Amino acid sequence: MATFGEGISMIIDRLWEAVETGGPVCLGLDPAPELLPEGCADRYENMAQAYWAFNKAIVDATLDVVACYKVQIAHYEALGLVGLACYRDTLRYIRKHQAIVIGDVKRGDIGSTATYYAQGHFQGDFEADFLTLNPMLGSDAVAPFLQHLESGEKGTFFLVRTSNPGAQEFQELPSLGKPLYLHVAERVWAWGERFLGRCGYSSVGAVVGASPQVLSTVRRAFPHMCLLVPGYGAQGASAQDVAPAFRDRNGAVIVAARSILGAHRGKPDGAKNFADYARHAALAMRAEIQPCLE
Amino acid sequence: MATFGEGISMIIDRLWEAVETGGPVCLGLDPAPELLPEGCADRYENMAQAYWAFNKAIVDATLDVVACYKVQIAHYEALGLVGLACYRDTLRYIRKHQAIVIGDVKRGDIGSTATYYAQGHFQGDFEADFLTLNPMLGSDAVAPFLQHLESGEKGTFFLVRTSNPGAQEFQELPSLGKPLYLHVAERVWAWGERFLGRCGYSSVGAVVGASPQVLSTVRRAFPHMCLLVPGYGAQGASAQDVAPAFRDRNGAVIVAARSILGAHRGKPDGAKNFADYARHAALAMRAEIQPCLE
Repeated sequence: MATFGEGISMIIDRLWEAVETGGPVCLGLDPAPELLPEGCADRYENMAQAYWAFNKAIVDATLDVVACYKVQIAHYEALGLVGLACYRDTLRYIRKHQAIVIGDVKRGDIGSTATYYAQGHFQGDFEADFLTLNPMLGSDAVAPFLQHLESGEKGTFFLVRTSNPGAQEFQELPSLGKPLYLHVAERVWAWGERFLGRCGYSSVGAVVGASPQVLSTVRRAFPHMCLLVPGYGAQGASAQDVAPAFRDRNGAVIVAARSILGAHRGKPDGAKNFADYARHAALAMRAEIQPCLE
Repeated sequence: MATFGEGISMIIDRLWEAVETGGPVCLGLDPAPELLPEGCADRYENMAQAYWAFNKAIVDATLDVVACYKVQIAHYEALGLVGLACYRDTLRYIRKHQAIVIGDVKRGDIGSTATYYAQGHFQGDFEADFLTLNPMLGSDAVAPFLQHLESGEKGTFFLVRTSNPGAQEFQELPSLGKPLYLHVAERVWAWGERFLGRCGYSSVGAVVGASPQVLSTVRRAFPHMCLLVPGYGAQGASAQDVAPAFRDRNGAVIVAARSILGAHRGKPDGAKNFADYARHAALAMRAEIQPCLE
């Protein structure tokens, strides 16, 4: 993980620096029973405690080989209060190590409600550096989140084009000569123009799935928009597929979760060395992507 | 609150019956410091405990004069873990009284993640009867929620057209001859067709803001879609504005929160009798709406 020069104060500059030094892997800490090392769950009182031990070991083993972490809150909400205690502890642990964490919460609601969500996820128990958000409700609904960006210390990634099959249904609908998702991207760019960092990117970025066509389109239209790209590895996309997200080897982070967290599976020493396997899987992913960015 | 006849097994039939007997008010349990009776917050260790005492008293005072409750999770997430414990307790308390509760969570994510959200909010600590959801990711993303509807005991309301100013930006974009929100409504109706109750409505409904034009359009196009209508009272809409949401005096619930929860404010005996004021505000709202439905 990067150490940051003096005077670099915006979160997007920290992320840019982290990609420069650590590579573009964004490790998704999305634990699931089937990803835990064999016997791990039995040693804890509940699944949330097992997740917490697992996450800690994975973070310890990967801090210097990833750009940042993304924690999908749904995996923790599924377990109720104990799960959310684990979410809180995981975010705190990452931030304590000066690493960057994206709270993958995809919240979106009218302005008065958004104020509460922003309070809940940019402060307090669930404080993250970046949040993923849903833009469907428009400018007044996202304004309370953007207020927190004034400090320079927070950032957002708005859903622009997801990588699932159903993304076609609404996000690709044609309107006024272009697909809906490009209308969204335009608006996202406008929201973020005043949060440009020294690195040239904005602290307001976009979630764009790992389709090379879509990534090229967005990258061309918005050269200074930072992209959070899910869909790599277990979800099917290759290093070539995600290469169009980048400009000068930066400006994007590529998410992988299962392929890294579960790298130990089927290995004779997997239960013991699961964190090492995760580290090597992250390194391998970095090495796969790097040559495609030349 | 209604008591339900034998053989009525679908949640939408329970909601229909509750509107028949209790009227169409959906009480939003969205506590905020400024809505608490004077001195209330001082008597508790933290704000979440004050909310819990407040919610309990409000529910006790309103069970027979509202159709259902809607609990906006953002107000609780803002307080972190203790807030979410209050969210859990509030939902449990409502369900213990055989009343219907809508978890206003507006979640939306790809299929594998949606499975976790559905688990978290249709089961366990945060179990609700209905959930509000964001449809932007399309059919495969909502399928895991719909699976829970097979039991008949759960329902959903998808965001179709919100009432905030920013709703114009994307939801009104024209596509193939109609605004985006009608494309969404069509898809929502298709998702729900197999979950029709005896009452004639589907357990898959829509959130449509209190604009008479939009409500008329949606009601005409989808006569059997149940509507959850925010925007009444403190948010500005009148009984006339929401009347087009109904068909034969049913098929919609109208949300009010601040105007009911805060009805005690400025009254000399408000701190003592805040729950009575809430009850009377709910009754007054019901009485306002009723004549517009003739």
